Amino acid sequence: MEIIITLPDGSQRNYPQGVSSIDIAKSISEGLARNVLSAEVNGEIWDATRPINTNATIKLLTWNDDNAKKTFWHSSAHLLAEAIESLYPGTKFGIGPAIEKGFYYDIDLGGKEISPEDFKAIEDKMLELAKQKNEFKRQSISKADAITYFEQKGDEYKLDLIKDLNDGEITLYQQGNFTDLCRGPHIPDTGFIKAIKVLSIAGAYWRGDEKNKQLTRIYAVTFPKNAELTEYLTLLEEAKKRDHRKLGKQLGLFMISQKIGGGLPVWLPKGTLLRRQLENFLRKLQVEMGYQEVITPHIGNLELYKTSGHYPYYKDSQFAPIQVDNEEYMLKPMNCPHHHQIFANEPKSYRDLPYRIAEFGTVYRYEQSGELNGLSRVRGFTQDDAHIYCTTAQLKDEVKNVIKLTQLVFNTFGMEVSTRLSFRDDNSEKYGGDIAHWEQAQKEIKEVADEIGLDYFIGLGEAAFYGPKIDFIVKDALGRKWQLGTVQVDYVMPERFNLEYVGEDNQKHRPVIIHRAPFGSMERFISILIEHYAGDFPLWLSPDQCIVLPISDKYNEYAKKVLQILKNNDIRGVIDERDERAGKKIRDAEIAKYPYMLIVGEKEATNNSVSVRKHGQADLGEFELSKFVNHIQQEISSQTHIN
Amino acid sequence: MEIIITLPDGSQRNYPQGVSSIDIAKSISEGLARNVLSAEVNGEIWDATRPINTNATIKLLTWNDDNAKKTFWHSSAHLLAEAIESLYPGTKFGIGPAIEKGFYYDIDLGGKEISPEDFKAIEDKMLELAKQKNEFKRQSISKADAITYFEQKGDEYKLDLIKDLNDGEITLYQQGNFTDLCRGPHIPDTGFIKAIKVLSIAGAYWRGDEKNKQLTRIYAVTFPKNAELTEYLTLLEEAKKRDHRKLGKQLGLFMISQKIGGGLPVWLPKGTLLRRQLENFLRKLQVEMGYQEVITPHIGNLELYKTSGHYPYYKDSQFAPIQVDNEEYMLKPMNCPHHHQIFANEPKSYRDLPYRIAEFGTVYRYEQSGELNGLSRVRGFTQDDAHIYCTTAQLKDEVKNVIKLTQLVFNTFGMEVSTRLSFRDDNSEKYGGDIAHWEQAQKEIKEVADEIGLDYFIGLGEAAFYGPKIDFIVKDALGRKWQLGTVQVDYVMPERFNLEYVGEDNQKHRPVIIHRAPFGSMERFISILIEHYAGDFPLWLSPDQCIVLPISDKYNEYAKKVLQILKNNDIRGVIDERDERAGKKIRDAEIAKYPYMLIVGEKEATNNSVSVRKHGQADLGEFELSKFVNHIQQEISSQTHIN
Repeated sequence: MEIIITLPDGSQRNYPQGVSSIDIAKSISEGLARNVLSAEVNGEIWDATRPINTNATIKLLTWNDDNAKKTFWHSSAHLLAEAIESLYPGTKFGIGPAIEKGFYYDIDLGGKEISPEDFKAIEDKMLELAKQKNEFKRQSISKADAITYFEQKGDEYKLDLIKDLNDGEITLYQQGNFTDLCRGPHIPDTGFIKAIKVLSIAGAYWRGDEKNKQLTRIYAVTFPKNAELTEYLTLLEEAKKRDHRKLGKQLGLFMISQKIGGGLPVWLPKGTLLRRQLENFLRKLQVEMGYQEVITPHIGNLELYKTSGHYPYYKDSQFAPIQVDNEEYMLKPMNCPHHHQIFANEPKSYRDLPYRIAEFGTVYRYEQSGELNGLSRVRGFTQDDAHIYCTTAQLKDEVKNVIKLTQLVFNTFGMEVSTRLSFRDDNSEKYGGDIAHWEQAQKEIKEVADEIGLDYFIGLGEAAFYGPKIDFIVKDALGRKWQLGTVQVDYVMPERFNLEYVGEDNQKHRPVIIHRAPFGSMERFISILIEHYAGDFPLWLSPDQCIVLPISDKYNEYAKKVLQILKNNDIRGVIDERDERAGKKIRDAEIAKYPYMLIVGEKEATNNSVSVRKHGQADLGEFELSKFVNHIQQEISSQTHIN
Repeated sequence: MEIIITLPDGSQRNYPQGVSSIDIAKSISEGLARNVLSAEVNGEIWDATRPINTNATIKLLTWNDDNAKKTFWHSSAHLLAEAIESLYPGTKFGIGPAIEKGFYYDIDLGGKEISPEDFKAIEDKMLELAKQKNEFKRQSISKADAITYFEQKGDEYKLDLIKDLNDGEITLYQQGNFTDLCRGPHIPDTGFIKAIKVLSIAGAYWRGDEKNKQLTRIYAVTFPKNAELTEYLTLLEEAKKRDHRKLGKQLGLFMISQKIGGGLPVWLPKGTLLRRQLENFLRKLQVEMGYQEVITPHIGNLELYKTSGHYPYYKDSQFAPIQVDNEEYMLKPMNCPHHHQIFANEPKSYRDLPYRIAEFGTVYRYEQSGELNGLSRVRGFTQDDAHIYCTTAQLKDEVKNVIKLTQLVFNTFGMEVSTRLSFRDDNSEKYGGDIAHWEQAQKEIKEVADEIGLDYFIGLGEAAFYGPKIDFIVKDALGRKWQLGTVQVDYVMPERFNLEYVGEDNQKHRPVIIHRAPFGSMERFISILIEHYAGDFPLWLSPDQCIVLPISDKYNEYAKKVLQILKNNDIRGVIDERDERAGKKIRDAEIAKYPYMLIVGEKEATNNSVSVRKHGQADLGEFELSKFVNHIQQEISSQTHIN
């Protein structure tokens, strides 16, 4: 009997019932088949070797596909387990999932220990087993048989997992001599795994519960080609060098003080300068685009968050309320309700719209202490927040302008941006508001995206609870992706806060709200910038733009004069007045990443000039002082595209 | 028998025992005697008529003396009571103290009511009684006799007060037909009271406890001359017009939203612009003077405030702690402990000092809801805070620079400043730290004040608990005095926070800390500025500096061009594009207090010019556009004294 297989391009082919995705791939090209890791069959990810028995739409997945990478790494976790079982007999196994980059397996070594010195042996054993090209074999099994199997093996963790599974839905996977309880899917055989790196070990409580036994978690990563592992390790090394926590300390940008509190970054003088540049850059763009700045308090009556629906539903990510007299206040977890009160403060007419208010608003959200990380996961952060209240007729134009602003911002940092239209998942119940409004908003967002020729993809189920979003995902200098700016269209809060304006028809109407924040969080954005630039900030952003280096004490006075002239021209700089040789001063200035070093001695003092050296580059030669001021000012304005 | 009386100029005279201050005044000059209201006798304020029986140092007090004013108003409260008793027989009396400006009396009318229509009759009765020149007669009385007297009179409130008094220390005062329980002192007779105004009535619980009966509080004010009353009423009227709450609303500067919370001002777009001007003005001065800006979180671990000693001793003026995991955090009531952590973040050497860090830091302090008032009494406010960490050798220079900065700031607003050196009261136990440090700091502050020729007075007992202060008291356009900027010298916190630097001697030393904030609180300072300027802000401060008024729709395009050119030159403005006549637009712009109105029509569009009208002044005529830009830029820089 034949079945009809539909391919992504819409073409259809007939195959015998029981054909596998890998067979289909072979029928197209042997080369393709060698790269197929798994397949999407009627929307589900399957083993490429699993027989297909009905008509189906299939997509063959290779290494370029995120889902296939996940399968590859999950299979690699099984391979790791096989190697461990061979090297450490009697080991019991917990869970071994794929993660963002690689995979881990939680294991109970029964008193034995693994240390980094053992990683090489594990890698070698994995490679040896991989070369055997052992197939991943899928087998359905009854709950009773599964229990019997793992009881005999003595693997209490698998037994614990089986308890929660339904009879009839249990499968085992076997490769070589190793069998695991697993839902799948897997790659065809272990031969696909060509490059292996065991990365680290950590402790992890079984099922994440500290009342349970602590297991050993082994992290590793694998690739289908050696070259990819090499590239990965190079990037890892580079990422370590660029770690914003390390550079943040080295460059004096920020500190975390456990005495003040975890997750509460303190901006040191140089970090504050950097942050102010970003704020002023965006502030200037916002003024040009008709935004007005406001300042609202950092606490608000709990009732506001009950009205918005954020409390108690998001209670776990908020700080506990503060009792004041007979009211309860909360550290604001977002600025929106405060801004809505500003909109509602005076009656609005259609002439007042679009009403655009912006605030660098510091908000506080609870994160578990184990999750806190430098500037990227914090408990207090400043959003470059704004809310646009407009008529439905104005919505599309406003969304367009916001997208333009956001793109302009990211282009300034040389970051490649991709855009996700984050829409509602109709099967989920987490969303509020009127379905007609949702559909209208999603339709308009898509129209805007098409009209301005945005390169986007749609993320179903990625919307906020009150409306669809446009999310901007940027790629940094290391090719890592970060979700940053967001634009949200909101028909729900105007209802909840009873916001209205009087239209041309003299009737009351609800405005639509656009929530937007290009940077998202100043803290997180700056953590990304530090790593993106490896601390070598472009001139306009650099906390200090110049360092004046007098070659001896005799020229300190002239150095001061130079600095004063720079300051009069709004150029930020310092002097190195230490009693050190010029060579030492230059080396230290290179380490401290000053964009320009201005060396001054007899010749420069006489000529009213500076000898210029650019960070990481050769000498630029002698500049008459006012020419240098010109040079640097031109560089700054070319970088920000604004005056 | 004779006693020796020492006068303020040090001269001594002999008088018979039992002489009164008024007798002494008469012996000097009859004119003086007519103006003596009370006297300071050996440091205590006495009735001018009270017999002096021992050698004494005395100071005769007249209307120019704050203490004499208090006596005058307290005596006036007795006069009010006498009038009330005469007009409303059977009235029972609570307390009747002098206040900042005038006095009140809390009375129980036993069911009768007083309304503003009755004020005239009360004033007339008071004037009639005043003209009788009834003496205030002092009489010591035993507790038993006092109880008998007020039991007979049926005055339960006085009986309640007597309960708390010690036998042997009770006095009555009588004028005319009215006798009151009173510690005194009083003016010689009612004839001194020449001008009377009953101002308002309010409810007030007996002893401020809402469980007690509510009495009627009558507010009034009196003067020794009619002209002073007239002047007072004029100022009162002017102050009402300038009320920052009223102007704040009218000019769209700020709002208080009960939904967000009482005492938590929200800065509207125009208020935010005004505040940013002030911040940038100070920021620029601070950069010039070697301060570095920092940003710290709005919460901090409770332990910080225990270390500083602010918790639990100032608990009543702080928000309740917030539980986070197993720690307690507090909304920061001040920025100091956060800044101390920044100082302590990296080891410091003498080369790093003075280390000056500044922050526009928003702090939160609890105030009772009844005390909240616009921007002047709030629960959240932003300090223009800074801390200077220096060596003891640097202290005097740093204090000098801070005083200079503060004076420069106030001069910019045309405010007259007086300076109080707020020193320790040696009899109080509220002060911390080493007495030698205190004496050193007070000595140095005084030396600095003398060296720079500061016009100051010393306020004993006005110091902070951790060190002496310099407080700046400014006089606004209505002559009202406000305590604003403060400079504090602190030897205590460096000990408590274990702050240190390595000196030239390679040994560890404690730095001294200077705390300073010229504005004090941005909120309170702006409330004063609004009233000082009556909302007519100087150009540099004005949220919008210009309004462009096209005389008809035809010139809207040219108006936009004008506005764009202004914006390109960092001049803030708006356009009135309404379809209204020019006259109406000008009137509305006057009310909205735009400093410059730029009228544009055919002539201006042709000439590339604007016709300029300055707020509250006549036409300035036509200006070529670039000339006007020049004109306005010069005015701005002449106002701020900085470029």
